[in-house]
Amino acid sequence: MLKSMRGLMMGRFQPFHLGHLELVKQILSECDEVIIALTGSQFNYIEKDPFTAGERIEMIHQSLKDERVDLSKCYIIGIENQFNVATWASYLKSALPSFDKVYSGNEYVAMLLADSGIEVKSPKFLDREQYNATKIRQLIANDGQWEKFLPSAVTNAIKKINGVNRIKTISKTDTKPTEY
Amino acid sequence: MLKSMRGLMMGRFQPFHLGHLELVKQILSECDEVIIALTGSQFNYIEKDPFTAGERIEMIHQSLKDERVDLSKCYIIGIENQFNVATWASYLKSALPSFDKVYSGNEYVAMLLADSGIEVKSPKFLDREQYNATKIRQLIANDGQWEKFLPSAVTNAIKKINGVNRIKTISKTDTKPTEY
Amino acid sequence: MLKSMRGLMMGRFQPFHLGHLELVKQILSECDEVIIALTGSQFNYIEKDPFTAGERIEMIHQSLKDERVDLSKCYIIGIENQFNVATWASYLKSALPSFDKVYSGNEYVAMLLADSGIEVKSPKFLDREQYNATKIRQLIANDGQWEKFLPSAVTNAIKKINGVNRIKTISKTDTKPTEY
Amino acid sequence: MLKSMRGLMMGRFQPFHLGHLELVKQILSECDEVIIALTGSQFNYIEKDPFTAGERIEMIHQSLKDERVDLSKCYIIGIENQFNVATWASYLKSALPSFDKVYSGNEYVAMLLADSGIEVKSPKFLDREQYNATKIRQLIANDGQWEKFLPSAVTNAIKKINGVNRIKTISKTDTKPTEY
Amino acid sequence: MLKSMRGLMMGRFQPFHLGHLELVKQILSECDEVIIALTGSQFNYIEKDPFTAGERIEMIHQSLKDERVDLSKCYIIGIENQFNVATWASYLKSALPSFDKVYSGNEYVAMLLADSGIEVKSPKFLDREQYNATKIRQLIANDGQWEKFLPSAVTNAIKKINGVNRIKTISKTDTKPTEY
Amino acid sequence: MLKSMRGLMMGRFQPFHLGHLELVKQILSECDEVIIALTGSQFNYIEKDPFTAGERIEMIHQSLKDERVDLSKCYIIGIENQFNVATWASYLKSALPSFDKVYSGNEYVAMLLADSGIEVKSPKFLDREQYNATKIRQLIANDGQWEKFLPSAVTNAIKKINGVNRIKTISKTDTKPTEY
Repeated sequence: MLKSMRGLMMGRFQPFHLGHLELVKQILSECDEVIIALTGSQFNYIEKDPFTAGERIEMIHQSLKDERVDLSKCYIIGIENQFNVATWASYLKSALPSFDKVYSGNEYVAMLLADSGIEVKSPKFLDREQYNATKIRQLIANDGQWEKFLPSAVTNAIKKINGVNRIKTISKTDTKPTEY
Repeated sequence: MLKSMRGLMMGRFQPFHLGHLELVKQILSECDEVIIALTGSQFNYIEKDPFTAGERIEMIHQSLKDERVDLSKCYIIGIENQFNVATWASYLKSALPSFDKVYSGNEYVAMLLADSGIEVKSPKFLDREQYNATKIRQLIANDGQWEKFLPSAVTNAIKKINGVNRIKTISKTDTKPTEY
Repeated sequence: MLKSMRGLMMGRFQPFHLGHLELVKQILSECDEVIIALTGSQFNYIEKDPFTAGERIEMIHQSLKDERVDLSKCYIIGIENQFNVATWASYLKSALPSFDKVYSGNEYVAMLLADSGIEVKSPKFLDREQYNATKIRQLIANDGQWEKFLPSAVTNAIKKINGVNRIKTISKTDTKPTEY
Repeated sequence: MLKSMRGLMMGRFQPFHLGHLELVKQILSECDEVIIALTGSQFNYIEKDPFTAGERIEMIHQSLKDERVDLSKCYIIGIENQFNVATWASYLKSALPSFDKVYSGNEYVAMLLADSGIEVKSPKFLDREQYNATKIRQLIANDGQWEKFLPSAVTNAIKKINGVNRIKTISKTDTKPTEY
Repeated sequence: MLKSMRGLMMGRFQPFHLGHLELVKQILSECDEVIIALTGSQFNYIEKDPFTAGERIEMIHQSLKDERVDLSKCYIIGIENQFNVATWASYLKSALPSFDKVYSGNEYVAMLLADSGIEVKSPKFLDREQYNATKIRQLIANDGQWEKFLPSAVTNAIKKINGVNRIKTISKTDTKPTEY
Repeated sequence: MLKSMRGLMMGRFQPFHLGHLELVKQILSECDEVIIALTGSQFNYIEKDPFTAGERIEMIHQSLKDERVDLSKCYIIGIENQFNVATWASYLKSALPSFDKVYSGNEYVAMLLADSGIEVKSPKFLDREQYNATKIRQLIANDGQWEKFLPSAVTNAIKKINGVNRIKTISKTDTKPTEY
């Protein structure tokens, strides 16, 4: 077993959109394998995190399958947020297969990984104005045009689990079960 | 032991007011027994949750006793907030005696219980403008007329535990021990 | 509202048996009210803790009702085990209505409450050989004569929730979900 | 997107052995897709759980790839042990893509899933005497013949991460960081 | 071993500034020993808490050493924030050596300690306008004149660990790993 | 501020004995400063961990003071046990001032620190038969000759907090508040 070059991308993927899909393809054009890590995997049914980890994994898996991405080169894994941020890089290593590069334009993430000797590389492209999960959730809540930003597998999954209604209901409630 | 029909009502009860008391009576007019579940039972001495679970249970119990509600038909139980909201319905079932109906006008709660096969019924009446715990806490903090909204057992308990001063002190502090 | 004298008894009540019931009656003969605190309320479906907190609360409540104990004098409340034992007395005070006396023959419990100024009193009687929850669970697992040690409401509840099978299944499994 | 029939298998996979691999193949002969859930994903570097979740995911993924199992039909996902066992089935649903059948010969697991309406099916074959992770870890600790029980990808991974030495060191230490 | 009079001061010390140092000296002029407790010790690399507990302990220790404060009279100890605030005083006692007086001008803290019989005393002086850790972090983020508010050991430590860049990076990021 | 060479020693120190004291002196003969880290700082009032973190810190501090060890060269810090052992080295770094060497004869500890680039050095001497905290706790429980193994400050502290009785009470109880 020759060790393959593995790239890591992270996100909440609430939901996984076409910008995320582009990044998967970019990484697979530069590395042998990609790890797609879902952050905040313990959260769901709240404003910033409407979908469960299981739902998100299924959405991503099906999107890649539809796009004929070779799933034998992909790891899709949930990771939990940590309160002690200084241990985050080390938690990441314990939760994921070994990786060589992190694709992130986020300086904060780069700082947290700085001491671990892992290379951080900015993604080539990600039109954050266009492809922005917060904006997409607002469009869903307000009956806007959201489908065009998502792989059709994600759109279908959202409909199947009644996700439009879920996001609307969350956006209207005062109940914040994880706040205090 | 014939299984009795049991209705559930939930709230933070910070504090338990006359609107809550009305709902207890409504449920007991429609069900054999009522479960009164205090949410956020792990929190106290903070702005939205000044009273401990123990204090709240005592306030509710005494209010029902004063009103000659039959306590043998009442369960008063604290439940903790859950970070993984998708498991909330199942946690609720583990923490409470079995129940048949939930009295709630909250669509979010209804959604979370949707898959569990539990009937959710809107309470007949609850003048939320009048009887509103947030407003009542503000009246307490600002020396307003708060006593008329509460059962006298709650008013007495608040005075006995020096609760007026507690709410004022919390409202003035910058110290937020549960925030970061 | 005159403050009533309140006595506290604690136990896992896995299950609540006739010895426990006797203690409730003893406390009510000496105090105005009794608090029955279920320890380890977060545990269930494991060997020492087969029943959920909700099931245990229901069993105790029904047993007292059957015995015509005045429920308006009883508080039945679950409390969680704490890792930092030194904070246990203080957690107890936050989770329960105020209390004046603890009924316990356990020197360890007495030590933990020593600094809090709460009186600890040994229960008059509790035939621990006869009425012993560990022994009762073993009798259930082995088709022994267990019903005679329990209030009939507890026996009925165990049957209704298929508790005999639950205890047998737990006793035979290697799966220990809370161990590592 | 037609919903495919999905089968779930669970285990600690410390390590993933040929018996586990057989079960994956059996499930894929009966279902469209398989979910392989690693339990106790939060534990590692202890006697029963020497490998991290990330290492185990990598071992399983590579084993399936070597065997030419179609990875587009496989989900490999870590799940954490829960203290409140009654919420386990519901946690499972939140952490995993939806599934239709659970392959397990464990009556305890069947009991925990009983109320959730999920079919539990006994695996056709699993020579537990032969293929037993506890026995395999002991063989590793004692320089026995362990390699023949494992897919070669697992053997290679264990060697690459210095896993033989890790298991020996753990087996000799008195330090039990997760016990108290 | 005669019991010495011990005074306690608490703070996040993000970072420890000259106002804090003054208070240490005041306490040592009135008590035999001082306990310096760092609150929120589990947090770091976030806006209000950029420095780890270890870094803060080192900064304080070195500042006192530079000032020729007798370290044999000082305890510098991290304490974690508690969700159940009612248990905080008791947690404090378990985490720290015994103490006789708390130096705090915070009424909220005084309230939480009220039942524990510990004397709370207002610090003689602390120019909160001048010496304010929030303001100092903002000066660091914006290239202002921050060094004059800090003991030189703290300034040096911040530079050594690249703390200026850390605070700037945190202030610019949208990533809030501990929020949801 | 020239960076000084700092050595780390770890232990539960239940209680801190003369063997531990010797190690402090050895480290200070080889390094400029020593960090004494108390593991399992969240535990107390249980068999393996009778004393609170605060009590242990006070015992160690006073012992060093009595021995005229220069406290300006010593850090005494509690650290909590971690469930995810793979993150332990990184947690250690966040909780402690930076360190250069770990003094430990424990191969397991050495393994956990192996990837972090920290040198692990075996302590010169520690007569583990003689100076063994488990044995000392047993001597205390059984009225044996325990005082000769401890610094007199530790003996005095144990007596002052009624520690002999505490250990005896714990050793006789069936109540295991942290087990389930």
